[in-house]
Amino acid sequence: MPVTDPSLPVLDLTQSPAELTVQLCDIESVSGNERALADAIESSLAAYPHLHVVRDGDAVVARTSLGRARRVVIAGHIDTVPINANLPVRRDGGDLVGRGTVDMKAGVAVALVLAAALESPAVDVTWIFYDHEEVASELNGLGRLARTRPELLEGDFAILGEPTSATVEGGCNGTARVDIRLRGVRAHSARSWVGHNAIHDAADVLAILRDYEPAELEVDGLVYREGLNAVGITGGVAGNVIPDEAVVTINYRFAPSRSGDDAIAHLREVFAGFELEVTDLAEGARPGLDAPLAQEFLAAVGAQAFPKYGWTDVARFSALGIPAVNYGPGDPLRAHADDERVAVDEIIAVERGLRAWLSGA
Amino acid sequence: MPVTDPSLPVLDLTQSPAELTVQLCDIESVSGNERALADAIESSLAAYPHLHVVRDGDAVVARTSLGRARRVVIAGHIDTVPINANLPVRRDGGDLVGRGTVDMKAGVAVALVLAAALESPAVDVTWIFYDHEEVASELNGLGRLARTRPELLEGDFAILGEPTSATVEGGCNGTARVDIRLRGVRAHSARSWVGHNAIHDAADVLAILRDYEPAELEVDGLVYREGLNAVGITGGVAGNVIPDEAVVTINYRFAPSRSGDDAIAHLREVFAGFELEVTDLAEGARPGLDAPLAQEFLAAVGAQAFPKYGWTDVARFSALGIPAVNYGPGDPLRAHADDERVAVDEIIAVERGLRAWLSGA
Repeated sequence: MPVTDPSLPVLDLTQSPAELTVQLCDIESVSGNERALADAIESSLAAYPHLHVVRDGDAVVARTSLGRARRVVIAGHIDTVPINANLPVRRDGGDLVGRGTVDMKAGVAVALVLAAALESPAVDVTWIFYDHEEVASELNGLGRLARTRPELLEGDFAILGEPTSATVEGGCNGTARVDIRLRGVRAHSARSWVGHNAIHDAADVLAILRDYEPAELEVDGLVYREGLNAVGITGGVAGNVIPDEAVVTINYRFAPSRSGDDAIAHLREVFAGFELEVTDLAEGARPGLDAPLAQEFLAAVGAQAFPKYGWTDVARFSALGIPAVNYGPGDPLRAHADDERVAVDEIIAVERGLRAWLSGA
Repeated sequence: MPVTDPSLPVLDLTQSPAELTVQLCDIESVSGNERALADAIESSLAAYPHLHVVRDGDAVVARTSLGRARRVVIAGHIDTVPINANLPVRRDGGDLVGRGTVDMKAGVAVALVLAAALESPAVDVTWIFYDHEEVASELNGLGRLARTRPELLEGDFAILGEPTSATVEGGCNGTARVDIRLRGVRAHSARSWVGHNAIHDAADVLAILRDYEPAELEVDGLVYREGLNAVGITGGVAGNVIPDEAVVTINYRFAPSRSGDDAIAHLREVFAGFELEVTDLAEGARPGLDAPLAQEFLAAVGAQAFPKYGWTDVARFSALGIPAVNYGPGDPLRAHADDERVAVDEIIAVERGLRAWLSGA
């Protein structure tokens, strides 16, 4: 174990990934407060001569440069949502319980242990530990690297260690948000026939939503289920006024085989004749599981592949043309829960899967 | 003209009602600030020996006690909505322009002039000048008198001097407000099929409202047009959450031939199967134009009778079993407008009509 700055928390990257998970969680790193953990990660990785370490804000990138034909990017965020009396980590049977155990310091621990241990992997590896994933997208550390140092993200395949219960989740759906605005004529409700009720006009919009049958689209062998939903509705001026405006806010989750333009064109068709404004649009990511490296990865880790429905940072790799999947320990439904907990068995399984593939692939 | 307290504004009740309207308006009396005007009204009326004057809060009641077989109540509120750089009153051709001219100090001026002048009317008269009409119903001065001194409101027929463009508006529609609550199951919008969208369920409620055909009901010879309208709708948790609740707020304006219970029963029938909560209910008032005194009044003033749609204080008399109508100078559509204005001709017409009826009826 190399000597490190004694003022920093010392990370022992030779311990088990479960032990390291506990240590990482107990260094609190709620989004915006990642510095101490980023410092500890940077200094512990810098001690390994087979890694070239770059610091960018509170992101740390460590790369091998073995001249391999292919490069794999393995990334994980080091921030968490706010703690809620759920630190320090406690053990409960075979589980680790506490903030960050699932989302996603167990995945970070696996990556750190393997980054230190694998001096000569079968592919070159870029290990990325980044900040600000749990907050507004424009702060995201991986997004910042993609904008300002895209060469650090280059690779043939990427793995995000987000919790997937040790299965492989490929790609992700895109997401669009639009407002549909109904316009009427204001009047006193005692003489409603003088006005025109904008809320009543929303009946047709809601009926379209209620009757819409979301598509299931197969993309690269995985079936993506879409969704079209009102996520908000507002209207009304006062208890005695015929309202002259109502707004239905709609969220469309669309399969990664559709571009953003395709998605909006579909919405304009579904809501033909209505005033529609796009307020948010993020394309999905194809799972890319037909790529050779992805096939080898799936075979080596022996994990089942599923579609990912929610939007995740794999889309940032997809936008750079790099196939990417999620693969990590922990039940994603436990993420952000106050009783966040991860099974040590899953940490071990993911560490073994990745180690086998990176060593022998 | 009797001598009054020199510290009070002096009201000359022998001037023309148009001149008195100007004087009344220029004594600002926004709801809650009626004291100075109430004091002036009380002291000016107290100077006339044919009137017995009672003060209650900032309401003033002045009664004749001539032993006539029948008693008429003539009432008007002395407060206004807030001024907006529209005082003092200015003249514009044949109009008086400024806050309170329409709603309803011209009507109050007519009443004050007649109260002073008619020493021996054909019926006994109770003149009521009351506070807090333009604010929350529980503050209403006429409501306070009805609760605490109902004997002061006794009579065979009542006239409210609210603006009606010098026509007679009889009765008023009732008003009910209900919330219809739709309940769903919250879920992440990326996996919408796990939840149930409460906003989508509002489609059926809005379709009922859109397709509803309001009734027109004849009551005592006047036709009342009803109205059923959404006046508000809310729903939504966040841009990525399937909402578990939506609420449609509905206002039902119902003809005075329906009781409050009838109105709610009708709503429960129209929205059968939905969760419905009554949040507000005020019964309307029958026009009562078939009463003999009302017939005589209509004949004497020579005014046309129309139904009143909005809820007004005539319903307070109706609740006491007293037929009541609105009859006053000024276009009601000008009430509360910043360019509130009343035609002097209408003030004169109403003063002549009332004087003729009360003198000779």
